[in-house]
Amino acid sequence: MGVRALWYENGQLVLLDQRRLPHTETYMRLDTCREVAQAIKDMAVRGAPAIGVAAAYGFALGMAEGLTPEECRDVLASTRPTARDLFSALEFMYRNSSRADEAARQYHEMVVGACRRIGELGAEYMPDDGCVLTHCNAGALATVEYGTALAPIRHAVASGKRLRVLVDETRPWLQGARLTAWELAREGIEHHLIVDNAAGHYMRLGEVDAVIVGADRIALNGDFANKIGTYEKAVVAHENGIPFYVAAPTTTVDAGLETGDSIPIEERPGSEVAVLWGRRICPEDTPVRNPSFDVTPAKYVTAFITEKGVVTPREIEGVVHGR
Amino acid sequence: MGVRALWYENGQLVLLDQRRLPHTETYMRLDTCREVAQAIKDMAVRGAPAIGVAAAYGFALGMAEGLTPEECRDVLASTRPTARDLFSALEFMYRNSSRADEAARQYHEMVVGACRRIGELGAEYMPDDGCVLTHCNAGALATVEYGTALAPIRHAVASGKRLRVLVDETRPWLQGARLTAWELAREGIEHHLIVDNAAGHYMRLGEVDAVIVGADRIALNGDFANKIGTYEKAVVAHENGIPFYVAAPTTTVDAGLETGDSIPIEERPGSEVAVLWGRRICPEDTPVRNPSFDVTPAKYVTAFITEKGVVTPREIEGVVHGR
Repeated sequence: MGVRALWYENGQLVLLDQRRLPHTETYMRLDTCREVAQAIKDMAVRGAPAIGVAAAYGFALGMAEGLTPEECRDVLASTRPTARDLFSALEFMYRNSSRADEAARQYHEMVVGACRRIGELGAEYMPDDGCVLTHCNAGALATVEYGTALAPIRHAVASGKRLRVLVDETRPWLQGARLTAWELAREGIEHHLIVDNAAGHYMRLGEVDAVIVGADRIALNGDFANKIGTYEKAVVAHENGIPFYVAAPTTTVDAGLETGDSIPIEERPGSEVAVLWGRRICPEDTPVRNPSFDVTPAKYVTAFITEKGVVTPREIEGVVHGR
Repeated sequence: MGVRALWYENGQLVLLDQRRLPHTETYMRLDTCREVAQAIKDMAVRGAPAIGVAAAYGFALGMAEGLTPEECRDVLASTRPTARDLFSALEFMYRNSSRADEAARQYHEMVVGACRRIGELGAEYMPDDGCVLTHCNAGALATVEYGTALAPIRHAVASGKRLRVLVDETRPWLQGARLTAWELAREGIEHHLIVDNAAGHYMRLGEVDAVIVGADRIALNGDFANKIGTYEKAVVAHENGIPFYVAAPTTTVDAGLETGDSIPIEERPGSEVAVLWGRRICPEDTPVRNPSFDVTPAKYVTAFITEKGVVTPREIEGVVHGR
């Protein structure tokens, strides 16, 4: 195992602080439900599946503190609005609050197992010898282990395929530069970092054989939300006839959502864009808009790679409902 | 006059050092042809039309130093490969090297006049009350005065239209955040800064009425090179039925180039991507690819706004050849 985003030990949730990567590997030890909520809000842990697992442990910590199930749920639910997995985890924990410790471990194992299976199922869709582009970090850091988008890449490389990865730096938070490049380097997978603006250039030149990303929330019609910029990559991949894969566990599917139109899009502070390493990149009073996610319509998706199978957008509803 | 990128006085070329904006307004005083070449290479001055004017003055300085016309041309031509205006300026100066000082002033006035006219002609294509998205900096800083893409915006606002501008930050060099936001603030034009990744999001939501960019080189079939990321914005605008305008003087058109396929694309140092304010955004040894421009095929262009008229891509060849 190369990378693990979090684990539970001695009644504490241990989190790799992703804000400080790649410069330092710092671990936070969290004792309370509110500490976990704050860590999610501040993006010490991020990535939909990892947020879900952190929230499950946060719920269990809350129960141990003597909070009610409703309090645990409400504290953790009010952190970040877009990722479906957060709410999937909280619903699971709420249903199983009488055995919260065991339920959190169970949810954790379910997510890790789903990611492992996504890797196995997705690897065959990776080119035998070619280049895959990914946006943001949908690696082990985003999912606890293996990753979603990175799982098929890892599995394909482990089984002998020759993959090169183009890593979008992923402004504003630089998940690609800080996290994906760090993960791929640790595993010895060949990669190059590019600015987000260069993704289309390489697609047009025929240098990209497939695009693979994770997801934060998937609607029943196959529309999905993911890190800001995903929509542009999907449109440009489509325009160039490049397969576009979305890798996600079924906990990311929102069974209550017909289309992507009503997915809540988190707007984060403008300072995330305007300030880098403590210094502004723009004039002092420049107003900023900072949507953290965008919605990609189903028509741009070649297939969803889930732990229950690789399916077209039309088939995603059936997978969730076990059909 | 709000902003001027450069001027000639007392036998020196005075340049606003664009690398240090928006934090400090520093002016460089250049005495020699080689100093001007270095300033172009290092991007103290950038933007195709402004590079052309700087090169014209650099040529005149070289002649005054006693260099041959060939030496002046070769020193300045080997700085940056993509912008056509650099070579347009050098060809003009070479033809007029016997009266270099006067020719440089003439070239300068020609560019400023073209930008003023681009503003007048382009303003009517701006919405009466709406939002325009721009990429990179094609303002006064890129063109000496007025700008190319920003000229119609300036002129439209001056004539009473209510425009809001969405400014792509434009990684890696952050021309949008550092330069365009600075110019628009000085002129009191309403704007918001966004990450490049968010451009498509706002286009899809119907919040963008037009996209307008500059150009570094235009082929006779209407393909054009511009700052990396332009291609993605053009594809996504096209997909959403949003008009996409390219504003450029005819000095940017390469009469020797049938299509955009053979436009030379400058690859700049990876450190421009990997290092921000002196600190790396990725692991120490992450390999980087940093293409500085991309090529957008003609089919994505609604119209070229030139000083000789607003024309479709099919008509650009006729404009250049005076038909």
